[in-house]
Amino acid sequence: MQYITKDLIYQDYIDKTLDTVDVLWVMSSVEEFLSKKLDEKINLTEKIVELINADRPKIKLHRINDDYFFVMPYFTRHHSGYLVEYIYYIYREDGYIVTLYKEKPEFFKGIEHDIKNKKIGKLNVNKLLFYILEECCENYYSLSDWFMSELEKLESKIYDVYSISYLRNLLNFKNMVYRYAHIVNLSKYVVDDLNEIDMLAESKDSLSMVLNEKYRDASERLRFVLESANNVIESYVSIMDLKANEQMRFLTIVATLLMPLTVISGIYGMNFNNMPELRWRYGYFITLAVMAIITIIQIIYFKRKKWL
Amino acid sequence: MQYITKDLIYQDYIDKTLDTVDVLWVMSSVEEFLSKKLDEKINLTEKIVELINADRPKIKLHRINDDYFFVMPYFTRHHSGYLVEYIYYIYREDGYIVTLYKEKPEFFKGIEHDIKNKKIGKLNVNKLLFYILEECCENYYSLSDWFMSELEKLESKIYDVYSISYLRNLLNFKNMVYRYAHIVNLSKYVVDDLNEIDMLAESKDSLSMVLNEKYRDASERLRFVLESANNVIESYVSIMDLKANEQMRFLTIVATLLMPLTVISGIYGMNFNNMPELRWRYGYFITLAVMAIITIIQIIYFKRKKWL
Amino acid sequence: MQYITKDLIYQDYIDKTLDTVDVLWVMSSVEEFLSKKLDEKINLTEKIVELINADRPKIKLHRINDDYFFVMPYFTRHHSGYLVEYIYYIYREDGYIVTLYKEKPEFFKGIEHDIKNKKIGKLNVNKLLFYILEECCENYYSLSDWFMSELEKLESKIYDVYSISYLRNLLNFKNMVYRYAHIVNLSKYVVDDLNEIDMLAESKDSLSMVLNEKYRDASERLRFVLESANNVIESYVSIMDLKANEQMRFLTIVATLLMPLTVISGIYGMNFNNMPELRWRYGYFITLAVMAIITIIQIIYFKRKKWL
Amino acid sequence: MQYITKDLIYQDYIDKTLDTVDVLWVMSSVEEFLSKKLDEKINLTEKIVELINADRPKIKLHRINDDYFFVMPYFTRHHSGYLVEYIYYIYREDGYIVTLYKEKPEFFKGIEHDIKNKKIGKLNVNKLLFYILEECCENYYSLSDWFMSELEKLESKIYDVYSISYLRNLLNFKNMVYRYAHIVNLSKYVVDDLNEIDMLAESKDSLSMVLNEKYRDASERLRFVLESANNVIESYVSIMDLKANEQMRFLTIVATLLMPLTVISGIYGMNFNNMPELRWRYGYFITLAVMAIITIIQIIYFKRKKWL
Amino acid sequence: MQYITKDLIYQDYIDKTLDTVDVLWVMSSVEEFLSKKLDEKINLTEKIVELINADRPKIKLHRINDDYFFVMPYFTRHHSGYLVEYIYYIYREDGYIVTLYKEKPEFFKGIEHDIKNKKIGKLNVNKLLFYILEECCENYYSLSDWFMSELEKLESKIYDVYSISYLRNLLNFKNMVYRYAHIVNLSKYVVDDLNEIDMLAESKDSLSMVLNEKYRDASERLRFVLESANNVIESYVSIMDLKANEQMRFLTIVATLLMPLTVISGIYGMNFNNMPELRWRYGYFITLAVMAIITIIQIIYFKRKKWL
Ligand SMILES: [Mg+2]
Ligand SMILES: [Mg+2]
Ligand SMILES: [Mg+2]
Ligand SMILES: [Mg+2]
Ligand SMILES: [Mg+2]
Ligand SMILES: [Mg+2]
Ligand SMILES: [Mg+2]
Ligand SMILES: [Mg+2]
Ligand SMILES: [Mg+2]
Ligand SMILES: [Mg+2]
Ligand SMILES: [Mg+2]
Ligand SMILES: [Mg+2]
Ligand SMILES: [Mg+2]
Ligand SMILES: [Mg+2]
Ligand SMILES: [Mg+2]
Ligand SMILES: [Mg+2]
Ligand SMILES: [Mg+2]
Ligand SMILES: [Mg+2]
Ligand SMILES: [Mg+2]
Ligand SMILES: [Mg+2]
Ligand SMILES: [Mg+2]
Ligand SMILES: [Mg+2]
Ligand SMILES: [Mg+2]
Ligand SMILES: [Mg+2]
Ligand SMILES: [Mg+2]
Ligand SMILES: [Mg+2]
Ligand SMILES: [Mg+2]
Ligand SMILES: [Mg+2]
Ligand SMILES: [Mg+2]
Ligand SMILES: [Mg+2]
Ligand SMILES: [Mg+2]
Repeated sequence: MQYITKDLIYQDYIDKTLDTVDVLWVMSSVEEFLSKKLDEKINLTEKIVELINADRPKIKLHRINDDYFFVMPYFTRHHSGYLVEYIYYIYREDGYIVTLYKEKPEFFKGIEHDIKNKKIGKLNVNKLLFYILEECCENYYSLSDWFMSELEKLESKIYDVYSISYLRNLLNFKNMVYRYAHIVNLSKYVVDDLNEIDMLAESKDSLSMVLNEKYRDASERLRFVLESANNVIESYVSIMDLKANEQMRFLTIVATLLMPLTVISGIYGMNFNNMPELRWRYGYFITLAVMAIITIIQIIYFKRKKWL
Repeated sequence: MQYITKDLIYQDYIDKTLDTVDVLWVMSSVEEFLSKKLDEKINLTEKIVELINADRPKIKLHRINDDYFFVMPYFTRHHSGYLVEYIYYIYREDGYIVTLYKEKPEFFKGIEHDIKNKKIGKLNVNKLLFYILEECCENYYSLSDWFMSELEKLESKIYDVYSISYLRNLLNFKNMVYRYAHIVNLSKYVVDDLNEIDMLAESKDSLSMVLNEKYRDASERLRFVLESANNVIESYVSIMDLKANEQMRFLTIVATLLMPLTVISGIYGMNFNNMPELRWRYGYFITLAVMAIITIIQIIYFKRKKWL
Repeated sequence: MQYITKDLIYQDYIDKTLDTVDVLWVMSSVEEFLSKKLDEKINLTEKIVELINADRPKIKLHRINDDYFFVMPYFTRHHSGYLVEYIYYIYREDGYIVTLYKEKPEFFKGIEHDIKNKKIGKLNVNKLLFYILEECCENYYSLSDWFMSELEKLESKIYDVYSISYLRNLLNFKNMVYRYAHIVNLSKYVVDDLNEIDMLAESKDSLSMVLNEKYRDASERLRFVLESANNVIESYVSIMDLKANEQMRFLTIVATLLMPLTVISGIYGMNFNNMPELRWRYGYFITLAVMAIITIIQIIYFKRKKWL
Repeated sequence: MQYITKDLIYQDYIDKTLDTVDVLWVMSSVEEFLSKKLDEKINLTEKIVELINADRPKIKLHRINDDYFFVMPYFTRHHSGYLVEYIYYIYREDGYIVTLYKEKPEFFKGIEHDIKNKKIGKLNVNKLLFYILEECCENYYSLSDWFMSELEKLESKIYDVYSISYLRNLLNFKNMVYRYAHIVNLSKYVVDDLNEIDMLAESKDSLSMVLNEKYRDASERLRFVLESANNVIESYVSIMDLKANEQMRFLTIVATLLMPLTVISGIYGMNFNNMPELRWRYGYFITLAVMAIITIIQIIYFKRKKWL
Repeated sequence: MQYITKDLIYQDYIDKTLDTVDVLWVMSSVEEFLSKKLDEKINLTEKIVELINADRPKIKLHRINDDYFFVMPYFTRHHSGYLVEYIYYIYREDGYIVTLYKEKPEFFKGIEHDIKNKKIGKLNVNKLLFYILEECCENYYSLSDWFMSELEKLESKIYDVYSISYLRNLLNFKNMVYRYAHIVNLSKYVVDDLNEIDMLAESKDSLSMVLNEKYRDASERLRFVLESANNVIESYVSIMDLKANEQMRFLTIVATLLMPLTVISGIYGMNFNNMPELRWRYGYFITLAVMAIITIIQIIYFKRKKWL
């Protein structure tokens, strides 16, 4: 029989309990864990404490003698709509598993629920580890689903908006996806490394293989979101460029149509005493006609060049 | 002997039938399947029902104890010309295969036809699974053929059209290809995973190998369409850029040719009382000559710079 | 002893001949083959006829029971200079090989010649297959050589031409290379797949390995041509962009030099009754001097900005 | 028991000491080492001296008969904020390890400290080598952490600054990251090569595997920084392009709005004797009205085109 | 004992000499070799002569029965500063090695020198082959060192020069690096293929492994130069683009500041009889004031938009 506890995480309590149950799952917040001076009670905690207190925790499978210490990420979407990235820790020893976290992951509750409702068969340490890592991967799935729906929202506006703030949103979105894809990829390495050792060997053909495939899938899905975000950005930039070209063409046409007229009118606006054309009876009308002809010739030229 | 049915998919009927035939293929729409409360009759359906009801079904090989549940994509081109992506499900148990779908895939009918006409040798569950997956891959082949011919239609207009809507079509086409290439790639993973287990081991050197090669080919072909679409887009953008440069050059030449003339005519259009040149007999004609000379010098300069 | 024939491709003739020779090579055009109703005479031809009649033949190693059917590409350069891509078929059965083609590949004649001149040692079916595939790969080598020399011709003009049609040639060339590189890559997969089975196992350390290396080399060479074509295109686009920037700079300088002069002359061209400067004795000359000073200041500013 | 010395690195001293201790770690600066004419005392030093004196030392695992000579990089951040790259050398022989350096790496002191405080269990040559390489990798971790924080500083200004010097900083930063990522990647190859031989075989499942994972992680992290830097640069370029487009649009609108007005005023500024409109009573006001109407039509046109 | 000769390369001389020495190294220029009609004396030379006479020699390991024929590249820097690429050939038979070249590679002299000075232990054919291939790889190292120093020279000017010829130099440099990186990569395949066969098997853990690592390193280093050259080009293009944007902005500001002034002065330069403003006492000064106000408003607008 398994047992779940939150407060009684002293080594002697663990030892005592292990006599009566098959597997023990110790859950605790990092603060509680550190405040209880467990370093005196659970072996090897010096290294673990160091890992927990690191500034930028490294997602990794740490091997400490014959035991394993996992530093793994998970993601929570808050009511405000923001996505937050957390780190949790799994320490696996013979007979029990310790999980530490800043904020208890949602998916822990699902596992607890399944265990209580006997939806999960007979447990041992490795199977419990498997269920934790499997549910954690489902967390990454939901992350990529959320990203995908966000991207679809962003993409729907691509042909309408012409603003730097829209591009900024796209770029920020992509950077966020890139960062989280990288994090999930690191957690895939953890599972790969787990596979190379014989931890889940007793049931190799199912447990470790399933984990590998799931994490590969999660990583692949995030890569798909990332590439899609890249495509959206490249599309936006291409469209904006073509629009700018179109305006450029408009300016070119207007400017080259009107500049010769300006020159002509400038010439006959000069104040020289001796300018015979000015005294011609139809000088003004001839000039207007010449202007019209120049304009028509230019329009024909532009039509041929397919600029108009 | 094999047997195909659509309506009688109750577990007891299956059990009864399995006594008389070698392999049973149960086909049903998802609605029928769910409405008949099969969860009471076929084992493990709770997990399956959950997978079927998922919002964004994940293309994947699910392992449920010793049985396998496939979530696979297929594509149908409708009369309107639009391409629609569907999901179908394969559930493989000892002695029978259940396939579920929203809309019955075209390629199922081909297999049925072949079975009826005895074109396929003696069946067992694995061989039936092989035929379904093989025909499904042919569906992906026809998808990439259709994409290729669509792309050729689009590409034929590349040097004639100058519009944002054409670019939009290209970008949308590419995104569609990218999305479907990703989906087919996921289904390739399903077959890869299938290969790692011993399901088709009895005939390893033919069945699973053939599937692997076929799915790799389908994936490769879609990647080729994707790269070709990228090439078309990059070509279009390059050509549009060069055209814009050409117009820019035209504007540069016209503007720099005419601006000095505007300045000169502007100067002699000023109304100062004391402007000696205005009273020169040939002032106007000298000015016109100077304008012509400036223009000629500029043209020579541009010719040398190869701008003209 | 081996035997080569073109017309006598009936199954009974084949069976009869096989009693007297070690290996038989049957060559035929597809039309001849299909017209002779061989489907009655050679086994499995129904599947083969289907493959031969496909609209877009798929380059692939088809496994039909214990026999193999190859769909392979080859390339012919016509007198007109155009490159044409063909498909030929190899059907390998115990004791004989059937090759089908629209137009007899050049490299077949080389093999025939070598066989006649006894340059090739004792043949069997696998060795004959090896020679056909080896010579076919030499065809791909010559393809990449031709592409390379074409690219060198194109590249030599890169700094002189400024035209959309040149870019169009580059892009079309690249697309052609990309398409053929993809085709040769698919034929490399055929040889890879061939290697996985035990067809050439009797002489593993030489035959199949040599084929693998040769096809990898051909593929690698085409990839090199492709990347080189990409480099040429990117170079052309970069240079055209820099040229456009240079013209832009010229326009900027001319426009910003002359626009202030236009404004000044415009102001003193106004017809207000009360404009004191117009009546100044040296008003005109002072204005000219101011214009000159503004121009000089601007030129100094541009020099400092390194725009001039 | 292990022993650490700096000055007594003569071969006879080493031989003598090795009788009394299990493992010996000889540390020395390159200058000291070369000045003491050790080439007479330690075998194989001719090759080593050559490697040490190379202009551009190649990061590599050199195999010299049965011994190994490592050329490895490490990084030091100086007070001035600059990052400096150094090379150090590890020579592993039976029973002792020689490490040579220009400037003693910081992480050596950490290992010494751990050994003195007995934090490390019973040592042998391979375990000592392992600790050196492990701590060296921690040096690469801190490098990537520093890069990441530098990039975050740079990135925070991306939407505010519009200057070539900012782009220059970004590009220089990226080049530095690229260079160091390449160096760390080469050091990963050293550990990979180390894994292929049986040096750390005695404890294969822990030591060499841990090193491999650590170096792969360090390399992966630097690749992440590199890609992030690329993303920042691409973002900056995209935003600058969009800003330039926006200015272009502004110019287009102003120019095309005002140019027709210039032409009209130019026409009625001509000095022809016979220009009937000039004598109309409301000619001037009609002209102003026409100008206003043209401007309004243009504004409506621009609004429709979404340019305004 | 080994023996090196240049002129006596007749088969009977070789046979005779092989009785007295362990290993024989025959060096010859291709011309000498071909002129001496060795095809009568050394077996298999028909195929070899064909390979030597090929127009575009393919870098490759040719297997001719049980012997091996290498086509390998090497690079020589001439006094003029130009880099020249050559091909040399290695033919390995039992007991002797034939090397052919157009121009004797520099690194051959180094090996000869080492052999004469007994720096190399007891030789056999495989060890001699190993030394040749190893020294050849050092030639590639020096190639990448030279490229790197050339690139550093080019890069140092990146922020100062604004010219198409500089871009041209960068692009040509990159193309050269790309071409030679491709060639060295092909020679890496030769060593990879060599590794798969059992030629150097007698001493597998040292010789072939060392070659593999060395060639991978050389290839990796050239890839680094290539990527660095790409980075320099991309940087140059980005900087040139930003500079062009900056000039564009300058033009935009000048043009939009001055164009309204031109329109106003144009309006009051019209010659209508009835223009009341012209007769106002302070009309001219009011107009100048309006011009100043418009300019100031625009400057404020630009400041807000951060264009100024
Ligand atoms: Mg990535
Ligand atoms: Mg990616
Ligand atoms: Mg990708
Ligand atoms: Mg991409
Ligand atoms: Mg992709
Ligand atoms: Mg882009
Ligand atoms: Mg792709
Ligand atoms: Mg690709
Ligand atoms: Mg590509
Ligand atoms: Mg490709
Ligand atoms: Mg790209
Ligand atoms: Mg692009
Ligand atoms: Mg490529
Ligand atoms: Mg490239
Ligand atoms: Mg490449
Ligand atoms: Mg590419
Ligand atoms: Mg590009
Ligand atoms: Mg790299
Ligand atoms: Mg990278
Ligand atoms: Mg990446
Ligand atoms: Mg990327
Ligand atoms: Mg990129
Ligand atoms: Mg790149
Ligand atoms: Mg870019
Ligand atoms: Mg790009
Ligand atoms: Mg490359
Ligand atoms: Mg690269
Ligand atoms: Mg790279
Ligand atoms: Mg890169
Ligand atoms: Mg590349
Ligand atoms: Mg680029």
